[in-house]
Amino acid sequence: MIKPLFWEADTLKIVDQTKLPEQYQLIEINDHQEMAEAIKRLSIRGAPAIGIAAAFGLVVGLRQFRDLSKVEFFKKLDAISDILLNTRPTAVNLEWALKRMKQIARENENLNNKKIIKILTKEAQKIHEEDIISCQKIGKNGAEIIPQKAQILTHCNTGGLATGGLGTALGVIITAHKQNKDIKVFVDETRPLLQGARLTMWELEHENIPCTLNTDSMAGYLMAHENIDLVIVGADRITKNGDAANKIGTYSLAVLADYHNIPFYVAAPSSTIDLNLKSGKEIPIEFRSGREISNFRNTQTAPKNCSTISPAFDVTPNKLISEIVTESGFYPEK
Amino acid sequence: MIKPLFWEADTLKIVDQTKLPEQYQLIEINDHQEMAEAIKRLSIRGAPAIGIAAAFGLVVGLRQFRDLSKVEFFKKLDAISDILLNTRPTAVNLEWALKRMKQIARENENLNNKKIIKILTKEAQKIHEEDIISCQKIGKNGAEIIPQKAQILTHCNTGGLATGGLGTALGVIITAHKQNKDIKVFVDETRPLLQGARLTMWELEHENIPCTLNTDSMAGYLMAHENIDLVIVGADRITKNGDAANKIGTYSLAVLADYHNIPFYVAAPSSTIDLNLKSGKEIPIEFRSGREISNFRNTQTAPKNCSTISPAFDVTPNKLISEIVTESGFYPEK
Repeated sequence: MIKPLFWEADTLKIVDQTKLPEQYQLIEINDHQEMAEAIKRLSIRGAPAIGIAAAFGLVVGLRQFRDLSKVEFFKKLDAISDILLNTRPTAVNLEWALKRMKQIARENENLNNKKIIKILTKEAQKIHEEDIISCQKIGKNGAEIIPQKAQILTHCNTGGLATGGLGTALGVIITAHKQNKDIKVFVDETRPLLQGARLTMWELEHENIPCTLNTDSMAGYLMAHENIDLVIVGADRITKNGDAANKIGTYSLAVLADYHNIPFYVAAPSSTIDLNLKSGKEIPIEFRSGREISNFRNTQTAPKNCSTISPAFDVTPNKLISEIVTESGFYPEK
Repeated sequence: MIKPLFWEADTLKIVDQTKLPEQYQLIEINDHQEMAEAIKRLSIRGAPAIGIAAAFGLVVGLRQFRDLSKVEFFKKLDAISDILLNTRPTAVNLEWALKRMKQIARENENLNNKKIIKILTKEAQKIHEEDIISCQKIGKNGAEIIPQKAQILTHCNTGGLATGGLGTALGVIITAHKQNKDIKVFVDETRPLLQGARLTMWELEHENIPCTLNTDSMAGYLMAHENIDLVIVGADRITKNGDAANKIGTYSLAVLADYHNIPFYVAAPSSTIDLNLKSGKEIPIEFRSGREISNFRNTQTAPKNCSTISPAFDVTPNKLISEIVTESGFYPEK
């Protein structure tokens, strides 16, 4: 199985996803600062994966401070958690995982620091393991709505690299393929950082699932001419009413699917659902550097210092979503 | 004024648009083969511009054969015309310009070859000059429908680089700006070859028109959040019923504009209208190399030899187009 991170012999390593598909390279993460930088530059990304990464990031950060007094140790816990939390604002999984880690620490504050770190390590592993199971269930639930023969359009990367397990939307696709359904996937390249081209195509080829790469701008053409049966994407935060934030371009896709009467599905674990927010209007949207659009690596592809706009996410209103698939069924229940 | 090609002292030079905006480089075109290659690799592109380029390409190709017999000379005329015509199938301007050149040659077949070449040179210049005037009129007609204050979204490049003159859709924007309208332009980068990022941004900055670069996938977000007042694009071929082929992604934009109740305009010269075709279904769509999607120049951005789909154009049905602006008014007349 493709994994975004490895915890082995108390050492944390992540796959540097910015290098894929040209190079598969592991980076060792020695403290929370290194993890925060890795999350910011998208060496590890995907809502469930960064939740897991933050949990392990907290562990590797905190273990430097095991000799501090209890009060200082807990101050560090909060400070490290804040640093990790502030890397990316949109995905709620980061907040969810860190909150859970902090709570476990508090529940065990009477133990010595070393033991607390051990418990936190186990909790991070548990978060990871739960996500593996969650992905399997999302895959199984989602595969039920995939026809026996289906041409599927997807956006961004929602596979093994984006989660702890099989993936969310890609997990559904992989599960349907394993059930011997006749699946063909069209993959939006997903500008500006090409997670579809670089990561999803790589994962689908790894799984031997027929896949074809297209630019994001071809979605309308494909829906009109290539018999797209359904669209399925992941989510970074889902609000109480079922609005879903996901990679920029998802909203355009949902409008196009609606126009062409094509079902539009979202697949995500429950940890992505933020019941504190009533609707998508409340979701904080991350704006990233304009350089991601105006340059390709070190090559200038637009006039120097030109004005850019670079929202990394958009929000799809629930009325454009046919179903939200989670590990425990469909949300909201009808 | 920005120009895609120069005819000076019987020498033909074109701007190598593949190098912009990093480098402004002129290439001398010595025969029709060089012109055909330049059109194929998009060193010169844009429906009106490639019509003009083909006319001059015919001249520089044919003048090598001025000493042939009349019969052989006219055989070469047809052969050169076919080579130029077969470079790109979608834009009708290529066919339109070459047909006109061949007809002028036939009308003067009693003259000697040298004189015919002289007449063809004048005709190519006339096609160029007419396009300059046509752009001015399109600009003037189109500016009438641009509000006093407008945020405009455009796609691909339709300016001085794409035409003989001011441009089509960009000509409308420039004209409105010159009329002191308060214009701000959002520019789709236009994957895969980034004509929006590389060329339109460069032209708009040259004209001092406020402009912001976005990825194509941000169009829905911009329409929902940035008060887009209208979308205006060019066209490569318009059929009798008013369907319009244009750069891939245009159809998606039109659907999005329709969903958001935003007017969607097409600007093009009458030479783009193909009355021989009843509807957009009959327009031949060019498919380009998948390498344009799977690689950025020499950098691999997707798995090696992955499957791709790469239509260079799509067709927007007339029902999604608010108005088609031409040099002589609106098409079809209502």
